[in-house]
Formats: sequence, C-alpha cells, structure tokens
Amino acid sequence: MKNILVLMDLREDLRQELENTAPGNFFSYTSDSRATEEQFRDAEIILAAGGRPPDGLKACKKLKYIALRSVGYEQYLTPGLLPRKTVLTNAKGVYSKAVAEHGLALTLSLEKNLPYYRDNQNQGLWRAEGRTSSIADSTVLVVGLGDIGNYYAKLAKALGAYVIGVKRTPGTKPDTVDELITQDRLKETVGRADVIFNVLPGGPETYHLYDEELFSRMKSTALFINCGRGSSVDTQALCATLEGGGLRAAACDVFETEPLPPDSKLWKIRNLVITPHRAGFLLLPGTEEALVRLLAENLNAWIEGRELKNVVHRA
Amino acid sequence: MKNILVLMDLREDLRQELENTAPGNFFSYTSDSRATEEQFRDAEIILAAGGRPPDGLKACKKLKYIALRSVGYEQYLTPGLLPRKTVLTNAKGVYSKAVAEHGLALTLSLEKNLPYYRDNQNQGLWRAEGRTSSIADSTVLVVGLGDIGNYYAKLAKALGAYVIGVKRTPGTKPDTVDELITQDRLKETVGRADVIFNVLPGGPETYHLYDEELFSRMKSTALFINCGRGSSVDTQALCATLEGGGLRAAACDVFETEPLPPDSKLWKIRNLVITPHRAGFLLLPGTEEALVRLLAENLNAWIEGRELKNVVHRA
Repeated sequence: MKNILVLMDLREDLRQELENTAPGNFFSYTSDSRATEEQFRDAEIILAAGGRPPDGLKACKKLKYIALRSVGYEQYLTPGLLPRKTVLTNAKGVYSKAVAEHGLALTLSLEKNLPYYRDNQNQGLWRAEGRTSSIADSTVLVVGLGDIGNYYAKLAKALGAYVIGVKRTPGTKPDTVDELITQDRLKETVGRADVIFNVLPGGPETYHLYDEELFSRMKSTALFINCGRGSSVDTQALCATLEGGGLRAAACDVFETEPLPPDSKLWKIRNLVITPHRAGFLLLPGTEEALVRLLAENLNAWIEGRELKNVVHRA
Repeated sequence: MKNILVLMDLREDLRQELENTAPGNFFSYTSDSRATEEQFRDAEIILAAGGRPPDGLKACKKLKYIALRSVGYEQYLTPGLLPRKTVLTNAKGVYSKAVAEHGLALTLSLEKNLPYYRDNQNQGLWRAEGRTSSIADSTVLVVGLGDIGNYYAKLAKALGAYVIGVKRTPGTKPDTVDELITQDRLKETVGRADVIFNVLPGGPETYHLYDEELFSRMKSTALFINCGRGSSVDTQALCATLEGGGLRAAACDVFETEPLPPDSKLWKIRNLVITPHRAGFLLLPGTEEALVRLLAENLNAWIEGRELKNVVHRA
C-alpha cells in the first residue's frame, strides 16, 4: 500500500475516478499549504502539486513520483529540491482549450476596442473609439506551437486569419497553420503580423525574447498577446513600446512578477489589458475533469509500470 | 444631366469609382447637416443618406431615388416624408462582417469575464472572476437570420458552437446553422440557449419582443447580445432581469434611446456591456469601400434602368 498525497480538494466523484485507477492504496486530500510535514514525509506519490513547489516538499523521504497540476515545471528543476530519481510529470494539454479561447477573446476584444468602450461605460460616455480590425483580414503569428498554440491557431484560422506558426525546431507544417517557420526567423517575420500570440514556456531559453529590438520590428498597428510566461517579455521594453505608439495594444495574462503589485505602472497603461494569470486556471467547466483524467491515467500507468505521459526530463 | 447629392465625404478614389458609373452627371459631396436647402431642392438622386432622415429632405422637389448608407430605413417610411414614387434602397450586407465580428467579440469577452477584469485593472486589483464558459460548448441562438445573422452563425459554428437560427418565415436550413426554427417557436426554444444573439430589425413587428416573459425563459447562465435594434428590447425588463440574476450578462450595441443619456441607469449595471452603436459603423477597414461599391452598382443600375439591390418596399 502506497501513500498518495493529493494536493487539491476534489469533488467526491473525481476522488472516486482517481482511486479506482489505483485500488488498495491510501489517498489523502489536502492543499499545498495545509499538507502536514508528516504527510510529505510519508508520501510515495504526490498528485496535483502547483507550479510553485510547496514548502513541505523538502520533508519528502520516500517520494518516487510527483504529478503537477500546472504546465509550468521550471521551479521543480532547482537542484536538490526533488530526490534524484523522482519522476516528474506536468499537466500539458489540460488547459489548452481554456488558454486558447482566452487568448482569442483577448484578441477579438482588442481588435474591436472593447476595453476602451468598457472604460467609457464606467464614465457614462457614449463615444466612438476609432478604427477596428478584422480577424479575417489579420496575419496572426503564433509563437510556440504546442497544444495551446495549435488550438489557438485552429480557432484563428477558422475565423479567416492567415496563420504563421513559430516552432523551435523544424518539422512538418500542421493543418492548423498556413505557414510554419522556425524560431530563428522570428525577427525577420514579426513585422508581417497584425496579431502576435505568445505561448512560449518560461526558462532561460525564452528569457526576455521580447525585447526592445523585437518590439521595434512589429507593426505599430499590431496587437501583442501573451498567454505564455511573463519572463519571456522585457516588461520595461513592452511599456516603452506601448507608450511610444510602437504597438496598437497588448494583452497579458502573465507577468515577470505575479501577482502584479498594486503600485505597478502596468495597471495604468490604457492600451494594455491585464488578466491575472487565469487563462488556464480551473475556471472553465470541464478543465478539472480533464486534469483528473490525466492524473488518473498516469497514476494507473505508474502503478502498472507502463509509460507515463508528459514526463519532464530533469537532467 | 442629373443632380446627384452625396451626403457623405468620400475619399477622391471612392468619388471616382462612384462617378465612373454615371458619367455626365453632376455630383455634390456634403453631409446630412451641411447640405443646403437648394441642394436638396435640386437633387434628383440622393446617395448615402443616414438612418435618421436629414431635415432638408422636405425641401426635395425632384427626388426620384434615395440610397441609404444605413441598414435601418424605418424612419423613411413616415407618411409624406418622401415623394410617393421615390425609390428607396438601404445598405443591407455592407456591415455584416463588422457587426457579426463585433457581436462575436462581445460574446467571447463575456464568456471569459473580460469586462470585469478591465474594471479590476482600473482599480489595480489582481483577482479571479469566477467561472468562464466555452463557445465550443455553447448552444447559440441567432435571432434574425439575414446577412449579419448568417455571418455570426458561421463564425460561432466555426469555433465549435451548436447554432440554432431563428427566421420569421419557414425555409431551407442554411449550412451556417445546425438547426432552423421559425420565430413563433422562439419562446419554447430560448431556454436551450447559452448565448442569444439578436439582430432583428426595428419596427412594430419586433417592438419589445424581448419582454419580461421572454427573459424569464432564458437560462440564468445565458448571455444576451443585442446588435439589432434597441426597440426590440423592453429596457426595463432587461435591467430587472440582469439585476435579479435572471441572466449571467448582456451586451448591447443598440438602445431604445440613442445616444444613451449620461444619467441612464444602464451605464452602471455591472453585468451589462455597452458599446455606442458602433458595431456597424465605418470603423472597420473595407466597410466604406463596400458601401461605395453598393452605391455605385445601384446608381449605375438606376441610370441604365436595370433592377436595383436592396429596394425597400414602402407600401
């Protein structure tokens, strides 16, 4: 019998679904912060840990497998945090629909100037807000062509956009895009885009990829949407670009510092739209179910010694 | 040589396009309010008149044909306003793309709670805003299946929605919808919808169609979007429904009174989004060009005695 620590409160039916895949083991349900040192010490398997490693993790003595409820796993790579042989999986794929749709909603909302109309409404102002643009006439650059990027690309293409996908490594063009380029061609291509949708992961390879120079190559009428990681954007460069008219507008769900401090200047930039890292949360019905399905599949595979999905290569 | 009065300032290339279709005639370009009594008196043809008839219209003595730049024509039907035999056409079709995309942007924006995030941003608040919904899991009711309705239906379907179209008269189901019903079944069908998109025209037949009873049959989680005419909605009933939790949210581009007065209570209803009748304005690039193309085609047809598009039956 293994001790399986689930760092998430789950509905009874979802607990059942999970436990049915690993009968005869002991499950405890708690949260990152409420879990006791004893629970961490005894856990052989941890399920549904958040993107930020819980403090209790250092007490683990028996941990063989840890499954994240987040896609981001960078903080788990800190040397010494996890036992050397512990297997780590993330929740890639679970939030694709939620994040892609959130990104599309932000895109259309900016194309039609909806945030400014909301501001006007709050002041009782009946006033036109200048030119709009059409997704059907837009060239959309999707930077990061994983699950989310492909989902967003498919939606944008269905609405008539011309979609260019950007991948790190060369490969066959998927049907979700009209054109595929590798990331080394980003600088020369970004100037063709009316919409730039970023879903790159964090980490040293993408750190401040969006810097002053890259922003300067974008059309001044372009929209920049970030639903990837805040660290890929040089925040000061984005602010300067928006304030200097180098972009029509931007929308960010992720930031270099989260939560964004109350006194951050970003809140006040009119043509920047802020959502609080909730694109890929559990707010969309069906997402929690999809997460538990993945956790259950992987738990079952672990117990039976089969191959796991979404294994993070830690070396 | 006919006097052709164009009630719109047009770019030089668009003036040329128009004039090329009717060579040898005299064109004057002005606006509804700047046009002189003399210009109205002498005009045999008026092009690009607005939805609200210009005051000068009563001075017309020779008017044979008037082409509107708007889709709405109701106010031109006032008895005695136009000479009995004057032919009237509207701009049906010109704004379909703009209005349908605006409607879709409002829909996705409400599904993802974006207006509330904008409000939070303006207060420097990093805060989650509850459950979202997915267009792909939504049943969308499109009330009024003309050019705009069909365009919106096609977009919603492309994003995965199940679309029910509502038409006044029976007919063959177009490919843009999954299901077609006639308007007499609206009451019994409205409760199935997660999104109700209204694009019905104004006039006595649609006056206050959306009343207390119809709103009471909608799901309390539904979204109501009005890009048709304000007169089709009983404003008090909509307010009461929104404030009483009878709908998740609504977005309106049109109102019973326009502009909405600064002291209207509508501005303050949190789950109502207001845009100032700009969905179908000339703000989307390509729209003005499409309007001039229609005006030019009809002008040419008039001169050559051929059949016109979009003729309004005045009797």
